[in-house]
Amino acid sequence: MKRVVVLLSGGLDSATVLALCRAENYAAYALSFRYGQRHEREIAAATRIAESLGATEHRIAEIDLRLFGGSALTADMEVPKARSEEEMAAGVPITYVPARNTIFLSYALAWAEVLGATDIFLGVNAVDYSGYPDCRPEFIRAFEQLANLATRAGVEGARFEIHAPLLALSKAQIIQRGSELGVDFSLTHSCYDPTPEGRACGACDSCQLRREGFREAGLEDPIRYAR
Amino acid sequence: MKRVVVLLSGGLDSATVLALCRAENYAAYALSFRYGQRHEREIAAATRIAESLGATEHRIAEIDLRLFGGSALTADMEVPKARSEEEMAAGVPITYVPARNTIFLSYALAWAEVLGATDIFLGVNAVDYSGYPDCRPEFIRAFEQLANLATRAGVEGARFEIHAPLLALSKAQIIQRGSELGVDFSLTHSCYDPTPEGRACGACDSCQLRREGFREAGLEDPIRYAR
Repeated sequence: MKRVVVLLSGGLDSATVLALCRAENYAAYALSFRYGQRHEREIAAATRIAESLGATEHRIAEIDLRLFGGSALTADMEVPKARSEEEMAAGVPITYVPARNTIFLSYALAWAEVLGATDIFLGVNAVDYSGYPDCRPEFIRAFEQLANLATRAGVEGARFEIHAPLLALSKAQIIQRGSELGVDFSLTHSCYDPTPEGRACGACDSCQLRREGFREAGLEDPIRYAR
Repeated sequence: MKRVVVLLSGGLDSATVLALCRAENYAAYALSFRYGQRHEREIAAATRIAESLGATEHRIAEIDLRLFGGSALTADMEVPKARSEEEMAAGVPITYVPARNTIFLSYALAWAEVLGATDIFLGVNAVDYSGYPDCRPEFIRAFEQLANLATRAGVEGARFEIHAPLLALSKAQIIQRGSELGVDFSLTHSCYDPTPEGRACGACDSCQLRREGFREAGLEDPIRYAR
C-alpha cells in the first residue's frame, strides 16, 4: 500500500481529500495541528473523521501560532460575520493566519520523509477559497519545488508531490464528491467562531461558504447552526 | 530602524549573523525553537546571546519534532563521533532533522509578516555545512520564492528576502568575522551530544568543525571540551 500524508483540519474539504485517498487504497497518515485555535472542536472532528475513514495513523502536532498572533483565528480579534460575496472577494481576510499552510506543509514534509512517503495531500481549493494566498495553485507548486531541495529524500532522488485535488472544485462540487465517497459530514466542523455549546455560528465566511455549498449541491447539511 | 527576523540556534554561526544584523543597526527579532533537542543548553545559549547582542526581542517557539523522529537529534539514536572529513562529505548524516530548516523558516516567515518585516536572516553555511540539504543556496532561493507566494504581504507587493550571509564562508572565516563583531563565543553552544554536566563532547561533527575552525582562524575557543 502506498503511503501518503494527508493534512486533516476537521473541515469538510480535508475530510473529502482523506476519502479520496482511501478510495485509491492508499495508507493515509493524517496530520492535524493544535495551533491555538479558539476551540478544540476542530481537533475532535479531525480525530473522528480519521477513524471513520480508516486512516492508518492520525497525529496531532502542537504548534502554538499564538506566539505571533496576527490573525482572528489565533489572537483576540473579532471574526467577521455575514460578509457579502463582494466583501469576501476583496482581499485577504483577517482570519488569514500568517504562513499557516507553509508551516502545515513543512510538518507534513517532515513526516513524509520519515515515513518514506513522497505524496502529500491537502484540501485547499481556489474557487471558494475565501481569499487566502496560501491556497493558490502557484503556492502549491512552489512548495513542491522547495520540498525536493529541502530534504535528504529529495537529494537522494525522491520527487515529492503536493496534491490539492480540490483545487479547481467549487464547495458544492466538493460536497457532492465527498457525499459519493461516503464522507459523514455530520462529523465535520467548519465554523471559525462556534458558540460555547459548539454550534456553528452560521455567519462567518466558512459557515456561509458551507451552507451555500450544500444548497447548491442540493444536499442537506447534517450539522445544526446557531442561526 | 529596519526590523529583521533572525533564526538563533545558540551556535556560533547564528550568533555571528545576529551580530552582523546589529552592526547594520537593524532591530533584530530573534527566534529560537525548542524542538525536542536532547538538551536545553542550546536554548539557554540562544537566550544569553540574544541579550548580549541587543536583540529587540527573543521568542522561543515550542515545536515537537520528536513527533516524527527520524534524526539522531530528535530520536533515541547514537550521535556519530570522530568522523573523518571523507565520512562527513559522504552524504546526509543521521543528525539531519527532516525538513527542519523548512519548518524554522516557515515560523520566521509568520513572525516577519506579523512584524511587517520582509528580511529573514539565518546562519547556514554551505562550505563546512556537514551535509545538510536544507543549508544549500538553492534551498534558500526556493524558500524566498515560496515566501512571496505564501503570504498576504507577498500578495500585497512585499518582497521577502532570505539572507544567509555566511553561506560562502568557512567556519574559520565565520569565527573571524564574529570575533571582529564582538561575539562572545563563550556563550555559544555547538555540540550535538554534550556530557550530563553540559560540556561539549569534542568529537561530534559539530564539535570537530568548531575546533578546526578556531584552529584555522588562529583564535582560542573559549569553551571547554570533555576530550
